[in-house]
Amino acid sequence: MTTRPYNQPLGGNEMPRFGGPATMMRLPTQPTAEGLDACFVGIPMDIGTSNRPGTRFGPRQIRTESCMIRPYNMATRAAPFDSLQVADIGDVAIDTFNLPKCVDIITDAYRDIIKDGCKPLTLGGDHTLSYPILRAIAEKYGPVGLIHVDAHADINEHMFGEPIAHGTPFRRAVEAGVLDTKRCIQIGVRGTGYAADDFDWPREQGFRVVQVEECWHKSLTPLMEEVRAQMGDRPVYLTFDIDSLDPSIAPG
Amino acid sequence: MTTRPYNQPLGGNEMPRFGGPATMMRLPTQPTAEGLDACFVGIPMDIGTSNRPGTRFGPRQIRTESCMIRPYNMATRAAPFDSLQVADIGDVAIDTFNLPKCVDIITDAYRDIIKDGCKPLTLGGDHTLSYPILRAIAEKYGPVGLIHVDAHADINEHMFGEPIAHGTPFRRAVEAGVLDTKRCIQIGVRGTGYAADDFDWPREQGFRVVQVEECWHKSLTPLMEEVRAQMGDRPVYLTFDIDSLDPSIAPG
Amino acid sequence: MTTRPYNQPLGGNEMPRFGGPATMMRLPTQPTAEGLDACFVGIPMDIGTSNRPGTRFGPRQIRTESCMIRPYNMATRAAPFDSLQVADIGDVAIDTFNLPKCVDIITDAYRDIIKDGCKPLTLGGDHTLSYPILRAIAEKYGPVGLIHVDAHADINEHMFGEPIAHGTPFRRAVEAGVLDTKRCIQIGVRGTGYAADDFDWPREQGFRVVQVEECWHKSLTPLMEEVRAQMGDRPVYLTFDIDSLDPSIAPG
Amino acid sequence: MTTRPYNQPLGGNEMPRFGGPATMMRLPTQPTAEGLDACFVGIPMDIGTSNRPGTRFGPRQIRTESCMIRPYNMATRAAPFDSLQVADIGDVAIDTFNLPKCVDIITDAYRDIIKDGCKPLTLGGDHTLSYPILRAIAEKYGPVGLIHVDAHADINEHMFGEPIAHGTPFRRAVEAGVLDTKRCIQIGVRGTGYAADDFDWPREQGFRVVQVEECWHKSLTPLMEEVRAQMGDRPVYLTFDIDSLDPSIAPG
Amino acid sequence: MTTRPYNQPLGGNEMPRFGGPATMMRLPTQPTAEGLDACFVGIPMDIGTSNRPGTRFGPRQIRTESCMIRPYNMATRAAPFDSLQVADIGDVAIDTFNLPKCVDIITDAYRDIIKDGCKPLTLGGDHTLSYPILRAIAEKYGPVGLIHVDAHADINEHMFGEPIAHGTPFRRAVEAGVLDTKRCIQIGVRGTGYAADDFDWPREQGFRVVQVEECWHKSLTPLMEEVRAQMGDRPVYLTFDIDSLDPSIAPG
Amino acid sequence: MTTRPYNQPLGGNEMPRFGGPATMMRLPTQPTAEGLDACFVGIPMDIGTSNRPGTRFGPRQIRTESCMIRPYNMATRAAPFDSLQVADIGDVAIDTFNLPKCVDIITDAYRDIIKDGCKPLTLGGDHTLSYPILRAIAEKYGPVGLIHVDAHADINEHMFGEPIAHGTPFRRAVEAGVLDTKRCIQIGVRGTGYAADDFDWPREQGFRVVQVEECWHKSLTPLMEEVRAQMGDRPVYLTFDIDSLDPSIAPG
Repeated sequence: MTTRPYNQPLGGNEMPRFGGPATMMRLPTQPTAEGLDACFVGIPMDIGTSNRPGTRFGPRQIRTESCMIRPYNMATRAAPFDSLQVADIGDVAIDTFNLPKCVDIITDAYRDIIKDGCKPLTLGGDHTLSYPILRAIAEKYGPVGLIHVDAHADINEHMFGEPIAHGTPFRRAVEAGVLDTKRCIQIGVRGTGYAADDFDWPREQGFRVVQVEECWHKSLTPLMEEVRAQMGDRPVYLTFDIDSLDPSIAPG
Repeated sequence: MTTRPYNQPLGGNEMPRFGGPATMMRLPTQPTAEGLDACFVGIPMDIGTSNRPGTRFGPRQIRTESCMIRPYNMATRAAPFDSLQVADIGDVAIDTFNLPKCVDIITDAYRDIIKDGCKPLTLGGDHTLSYPILRAIAEKYGPVGLIHVDAHADINEHMFGEPIAHGTPFRRAVEAGVLDTKRCIQIGVRGTGYAADDFDWPREQGFRVVQVEECWHKSLTPLMEEVRAQMGDRPVYLTFDIDSLDPSIAPG
Repeated sequence: MTTRPYNQPLGGNEMPRFGGPATMMRLPTQPTAEGLDACFVGIPMDIGTSNRPGTRFGPRQIRTESCMIRPYNMATRAAPFDSLQVADIGDVAIDTFNLPKCVDIITDAYRDIIKDGCKPLTLGGDHTLSYPILRAIAEKYGPVGLIHVDAHADINEHMFGEPIAHGTPFRRAVEAGVLDTKRCIQIGVRGTGYAADDFDWPREQGFRVVQVEECWHKSLTPLMEEVRAQMGDRPVYLTFDIDSLDPSIAPG
Repeated sequence: MTTRPYNQPLGGNEMPRFGGPATMMRLPTQPTAEGLDACFVGIPMDIGTSNRPGTRFGPRQIRTESCMIRPYNMATRAAPFDSLQVADIGDVAIDTFNLPKCVDIITDAYRDIIKDGCKPLTLGGDHTLSYPILRAIAEKYGPVGLIHVDAHADINEHMFGEPIAHGTPFRRAVEAGVLDTKRCIQIGVRGTGYAADDFDWPREQGFRVVQVEECWHKSLTPLMEEVRAQMGDRPVYLTFDIDSLDPSIAPG
Repeated sequence: MTTRPYNQPLGGNEMPRFGGPATMMRLPTQPTAEGLDACFVGIPMDIGTSNRPGTRFGPRQIRTESCMIRPYNMATRAAPFDSLQVADIGDVAIDTFNLPKCVDIITDAYRDIIKDGCKPLTLGGDHTLSYPILRAIAEKYGPVGLIHVDAHADINEHMFGEPIAHGTPFRRAVEAGVLDTKRCIQIGVRGTGYAADDFDWPREQGFRVVQVEECWHKSLTPLMEEVRAQMGDRPVYLTFDIDSLDPSIAPG
Repeated sequence: MTTRPYNQPLGGNEMPRFGGPATMMRLPTQPTAEGLDACFVGIPMDIGTSNRPGTRFGPRQIRTESCMIRPYNMATRAAPFDSLQVADIGDVAIDTFNLPKCVDIITDAYRDIIKDGCKPLTLGGDHTLSYPILRAIAEKYGPVGLIHVDAHADINEHMFGEPIAHGTPFRRAVEAGVLDTKRCIQIGVRGTGYAADDFDWPREQGFRVVQVEECWHKSLTPLMEEVRAQMGDRPVYLTFDIDSLDPSIAPG
């Protein structure tokens, strides 16, 4: 019987956390997803954003901050690196001067990443990226479920007349048939909108929409159990937008 | 039958939110309150503050941040701009070298703003401004109710020997008879004081005082219903001090 | 005899400089360039940039900082507002999701601004904007001179395969024939490049190129006299890139 | 009958809070703990930290921020300065180039501070300092109870091979027999670890360990009553690590 | 023969520079100027400023930064603490809610500081403070010379109608006869003004005005020799405004 | 005839500069110096510093900023990557809890780096590191010349009683005989010191010391020629301390 040598995060007793390469969780890097169960991959993009830019530096900064993370979760005792081969495969080389072209570049990159079953963990990047990723995933797995934690539903018809932008990916995804709309949930949406019924469109597609007011003053553990039931055991795409946090913590 | 053309916030699909004039909520401006149901007005003042200055830049910065706000509230489906004429009427030209003079300048300005029934929404500015505003309001409407959300009661007898400062407005207002003291509530007061009974003075005037410890770990919706009952259907002045937020979010 | 009432910056004795509308130099605004000798106009764009974004907020921030400027220059005693009608005409509504489209939007906007002779003073915005502005100018005035102060020559053939980006405007302008290449000068170029002869291409087009090393330890007044002689009395486009300042002051 | 003249914080009506000496809570200073019931003392140290340094400036910055604090607690009406003589006795002169030497310097300093019964209130400084303080305390009072609020248990065997560092003080303290391990509690520990059972070691020593997940969505008042029962009426050392706050407020 | 024990800055080998009391240059403090050749004294004021406030924190922050300064000047080998008794006497307790009253408080405080010949070294505080200091000095020494390094001449007739503000002190001082106008020099004035002849008024009073353009690209040592000749051996007041530095270093 | 394939910085047209691995100048990495003409190597250390820490993050941040650098120098047309094999070999794994131990760790690491002739280009890290590096260099090359650009001479006898700290490396190096003292120059030293003759000690060892006052208002090209003559063609160690820049740019 042989043990497979899983990649491990570089420990703080081998190299101080402020030194060494700033890869995601201090994991080894490799140029492709070959042989991996899961991979971290960055999409350094912000040209889809309608207000503050800067998420182009997101993948680099997330990696830098991740240098503090140790391999075991102390609440759940989860130990992902005991049974999964994970590495950081770097960034997708987007064309930062051309947003529509980026969409195709991303789909191509993810088609390659997932072709042997590797699960990508994306470091964004503005939310435009969900649409091209979902396209690649649906090609391989068919329409997937969606767990979307965000302040916004990101289901605009267009922005400034453009079909591709950070506020439109899930409408594009629905139109493209890449989501299993009965297994879609949006959690934490809130704030102000262009119309009082902005959140009704995803509901009409079959999504469950949990506005943030339903999340206050209580544990979300019961909701998570409902989500598990809704998703079943088929493939799911999970995406978390930092502005789902309170604006006092993550101003827009 | 004609429809009255209500002002609308400039949309992000007409001008990117990072461009265009940084008026409050991207509303049109006009020099006076004439013809308005409500107006935004700034008081760029901080010379009443006893520690950190900077609220002189408050109106400008609040306007800049407000460029993100869209017209509809997604929780309540409120649509204020469907039935109210609102504009940004700019700032009160205070005399930043003379605090007592500012008090008269502000009362004069508000007398004019409210004379035809326009409701002012003030962008501060240190809390000294509540006293001169209340004076103007009481001249027209008589003593009014008060909903005051703050870390401090702002009812000092004086500060450094001065009657006018950011810690004294509600004592001055009580003395001037401009508050309907049975319809006054202070919510969220907390912290440290010069005497253990600092919060008893407003109680003795008839105010309800809800210390912050009563607000933790629960929804404030029931309290809000009590506030509505207390206020009835007569005029109320509502003021919110940013330091009512936790100091981790809004340090002093 | 009547005096023409020239617009004046709002003085600090009428409204504190931290209050009032944050227009450029506190000048009045108007929606078009009609009747103006010169106008300030913003282009809130950064999607042409290859590294740090953020100049989309440039026009707004430049205006805010300009609130400190008073009308007279104390060194030269120049008094522009005694003889020129100037206003702030706001921002060009670019399509922030589509860089090639922005180029056409900008040319269209400037065609309109200059049609009656108004001289535009542009608040950028990344340097991509020089190409569409020059196109509009050359349509009306023919090929113009160029005074370009920058760390980079911005004459790349392409960036990431794209012809339109912040590093290509002056090559595109030369190709389009909108520059009078014998009356072009680039001042302050420096640093590192993709090839040792990057600065030779503009020289081959007829430009004068003054590398930054020639500017150190001396007054540039003599150089400015040479520039005046080179430009003669025909139209000139002057552009200043903030990174022409030392990186200790304006990091990349 | 004479009244003992207790030190009082300098009031904001005698000297603006932004002026005057930035001592802790604006209390008087004295060079030793002589005659004091309690004292504030700083340990400007960060060389025990494994990631971000800067707590060497902690004592100075805590004092500066404390200038806002007034003498009475408005929730409990506690009035410490009505019955206790308290002063700020300055900082321990650590040897910032030699961590092991610091440990002895601190123990020596605290031996002197507590010799006549003064209770030290320490302004840190990284958590390495708890071990040498506990050594001094146990010499005088015997093994003490521990209330430790932190994200980490700080019970590592070693860090980078070193026995003394900010992640080891409570293991060293247990080994040295200076803690009354049945009266020790760690509250709020969380996050990731080098092993799934990191928090089991203190439990094996007899500590109570309350992981942060047990603290969410409720008042901790009941827990505090249990803590009081656990501690009894014998001496206790209380230590609070700023990273026990959420990382959104106090990033690591 | 005895040696007088001059105060010495606390050395970095006795207490780390990031620890210990943040007095000016780490000198001892005393409550008055008694027995001192020179003293550091703070005026924590910013209510005289017409734009950015914050200099109320100036004295505290200057002291904090001064913790890096050692006693000997390495260029001139000057050793002030070998022959002068110097201490930090704390801050003037201004009334931050009343600018006119501050002027009298400051004159009173300086009258006391200088009564036995102590030379005050003021840590500001906005420039309004020069007028009340000069009043106190002239009472004792008669009209004095002035060396004023600044971007502005600070000789406005009034600001927003007020005679006392940070832009008026030297006009008030001339009117009060407290300056020896033939021994006054203003160095570095520049920028924009309300009139082209703003800098002519001080010239008309007999001041020498050296605009900043005369200071560029050369050593100012020759100018300093002229200044010494102008001042002679009679008393001089020297004041340095931080905005005399380039705005890239010290933005207004 | 074969061409040796020199490593090249990753270009901005292959991967946006805000994406991809943040290695020094975007060069490839390798774990050792084997086969290299020169290497970049980081020493993430700040525990030798006597005031502000943070240089432990220096190597990581220098690498991040270096992503902007392109391969050719536009002033000199130098093209280092056309003839030298260069890579980034990562960081030295220092023991951040033990400064004396770090000195040995660094000497050991550099002994290995230089053993086959590779020239190390160090990314610091506080200046303590120069002493252990010089020890390793002198073992292989004998005593070397020194070009030291700094605000401080770093030749203290000790700091807080410790022989090893950021202010002592060049005294330790002289004592250890690892410097060729006639070929040593210190440029830019300035400021304040513990004694007027602090800079005389290196002069007495044979160093040339150029105080900063000799560097103002002129080109340093003539000085550089003198430095070349002084150094001759034997090995030289060049070190640049960021505080040699003006404190307005690089505050201590």
